[in-house]
Amino acid sequence: MLKKRLFTPGPTSVPEEVLLEMAAPIMHHRTDEFIKIAAEVFENLKYIFQTKNDVFIIASSGTGAMETSVVNFLSEGDKVIVISGGKFGERFKEISLAYKLNVIPVELEWGKKLDTNIIKDLLEKNPDVKAVFGTLCETSTGTHFDIKALGEIVANYEDTILVVDTISSLGAVPCMTDEWKIDVVVTGSQKAFMLPPGLAFISVSEKALKKIETSNLPKYYFNLKKYKKTLAKNDFPFTIPVSLIVGLRKSLQIIKNIGIEKIWEEHHIRAEATRQAMISAGLKLLSESPSDAVTAVVLPEGVDGDKLVKILRTKYGMSIAGGQDHLKGKIIRISHLGWQDEFDVLTAICGVGVGLKDMGINIETEKAISAARKVLFGSSQ
Amino acid sequence: MLKKRLFTPGPTSVPEEVLLEMAAPIMHHRTDEFIKIAAEVFENLKYIFQTKNDVFIIASSGTGAMETSVVNFLSEGDKVIVISGGKFGERFKEISLAYKLNVIPVELEWGKKLDTNIIKDLLEKNPDVKAVFGTLCETSTGTHFDIKALGEIVANYEDTILVVDTISSLGAVPCMTDEWKIDVVVTGSQKAFMLPPGLAFISVSEKALKKIETSNLPKYYFNLKKYKKTLAKNDFPFTIPVSLIVGLRKSLQIIKNIGIEKIWEEHHIRAEATRQAMISAGLKLLSESPSDAVTAVVLPEGVDGDKLVKILRTKYGMSIAGGQDHLKGKIIRISHLGWQDEFDVLTAICGVGVGLKDMGINIETEKAISAARKVLFGSSQ
Repeated sequence: MLKKRLFTPGPTSVPEEVLLEMAAPIMHHRTDEFIKIAAEVFENLKYIFQTKNDVFIIASSGTGAMETSVVNFLSEGDKVIVISGGKFGERFKEISLAYKLNVIPVELEWGKKLDTNIIKDLLEKNPDVKAVFGTLCETSTGTHFDIKALGEIVANYEDTILVVDTISSLGAVPCMTDEWKIDVVVTGSQKAFMLPPGLAFISVSEKALKKIETSNLPKYYFNLKKYKKTLAKNDFPFTIPVSLIVGLRKSLQIIKNIGIEKIWEEHHIRAEATRQAMISAGLKLLSESPSDAVTAVVLPEGVDGDKLVKILRTKYGMSIAGGQDHLKGKIIRISHLGWQDEFDVLTAICGVGVGLKDMGINIETEKAISAARKVLFGSSQ
Repeated sequence: MLKKRLFTPGPTSVPEEVLLEMAAPIMHHRTDEFIKIAAEVFENLKYIFQTKNDVFIIASSGTGAMETSVVNFLSEGDKVIVISGGKFGERFKEISLAYKLNVIPVELEWGKKLDTNIIKDLLEKNPDVKAVFGTLCETSTGTHFDIKALGEIVANYEDTILVVDTISSLGAVPCMTDEWKIDVVVTGSQKAFMLPPGLAFISVSEKALKKIETSNLPKYYFNLKKYKKTLAKNDFPFTIPVSLIVGLRKSLQIIKNIGIEKIWEEHHIRAEATRQAMISAGLKLLSESPSDAVTAVVLPEGVDGDKLVKILRTKYGMSIAGGQDHLKGKIIRISHLGWQDEFDVLTAICGVGVGLKDMGINIETEKAISAARKVLFGSSQ
């Protein structure tokens, strides 16, 4: 019986305390007891989102919330800027095109930084742009984007909103929704929230709320007007996954008790340790602006990353992620998300070394572990 | 500590065996282990659906699958017939209108039977109708619709599909998808499937599959082309609620072991016992064609059904449902769905009598229990 370890950027491990809460007998979603739980959850979500805005809960994957952020604030033919530096930025483009929006794509090489001046210039030339779509952490490359700078730029335009996919990063790295002037923040339950997949969350600013009134894109299940109406009663327009909400209450309590700043710091340390380890091992990071949510590591030429993923999974019970699309087989991705501690980081680093060794490839695993220990525990002694 | 009992038409009780499966550590959805589970689940869903067609799984409430059944098979302006005899039939109309379909509404008084000749005539006059939307059990009224007869009618039209909402009834009452020639069957996890809410299922016939190719309604998350592509690998296009899938495997195993015919029979007996009990108590059934999934009971003039629901919930831990929209306060609804046995039926009947007594209203509870026992155990001695 292999001990299972999840280092994938979702789903991530769920603490036993949360699993047990979810295993309690099902309650009806229109009882006082459940409405009280929902009220607590809605309130605590605002804390994680660092916002005073309403945060809506939808029963879907993160992609459902991405679609929600397109269909509620825009109208057919609207001009939008979509920043894309990986698979998930591309998804915003695909959704926008599915709804016949007029997309101005800003395509970056995967792993590259965004020069926010590009967006500034584009908006100056296209003041009729209705929304700018960005990503806080592009999961496919482990790249962090400077959303704060984007917020400053977009805030100058009265009729333009900033929509940010934080699916793999909210709760792991700072996302100051209100302070950074992000109008719409989209995320999912199966990453830093320490929950199984099945819920998505979306916060909406006053500026974005106004756009709901005029949006003419067709929608029903993702129609935020319905969610807005029921939120006032701490209710949901459609049957919500009650057991996941009960789990969410618990995980939000855990996060709140630790403190979100402390959790960001812990993610940073785990990510930094992994980065130092990989560099010390002689490997390269893919991203020139690495996120603390997930680290993408470039494998030596000729080494099959998918094979490494498979060996780790089948022989050692350890799940890391491989590369997607044109990076398939070329990189591995190690997540720092959610319920992990320092020893888990050492485990992941050691696992990569052992797996590569099984493939006949030697990296400097000892140096890697030593470098990680220095970051994690302040010393490698 | 009140013992909780769910007699609502969703969410319904989840067996401990299923709850415990879902409390196991989270596994990644792209592992061999999970793909094996998914393969078993996809196969067993066909059994519950009584179909050879593919059954797709979507992370959403049942409404999400209803929207899926609209946006994938139709194009803007298409003519559709929507049969509506309650809140959920109306929902199909609302979704169709949100996507600018040309809706021919067939509106029945709530609780009334459908004369299928109406549909026959309508199709003769409108052979260009692309889809007929119906409901197997209208949950808001506890009414059963003759889907078999509809299937015979619609099958005569080469370019018309029959779409049926079976959210509160699949797995509880016979739904012979292939035999009855239903093209699209939509259902959810939190009813007869004995699971928490969070998953929706949709089966698609060859005839309906062809329509996917030409459909021009905008969609992304609900785009079945994506689900079709991944299904071939027992995979999903977007992160699926892994814990619910693990629970689904268990609940499908339970259903298969008992046998679906046996389960239909058990639902029938529970429903019949409840009906006989309510009539013996001096109350009336709302529906002229009652479903074995849920029983709607008309309360005596002046009795507040919502108050009864509240008393049962807060004082006795028992959840039944009240009426919706214009039936609010006038009826109660008792579900027979999923994980219930004969003694649960007696409990529900006794609960209604006790709750009404608390409100100062006397019904013939003893006669009710006696009538139920006769149906449940073959004798009231």
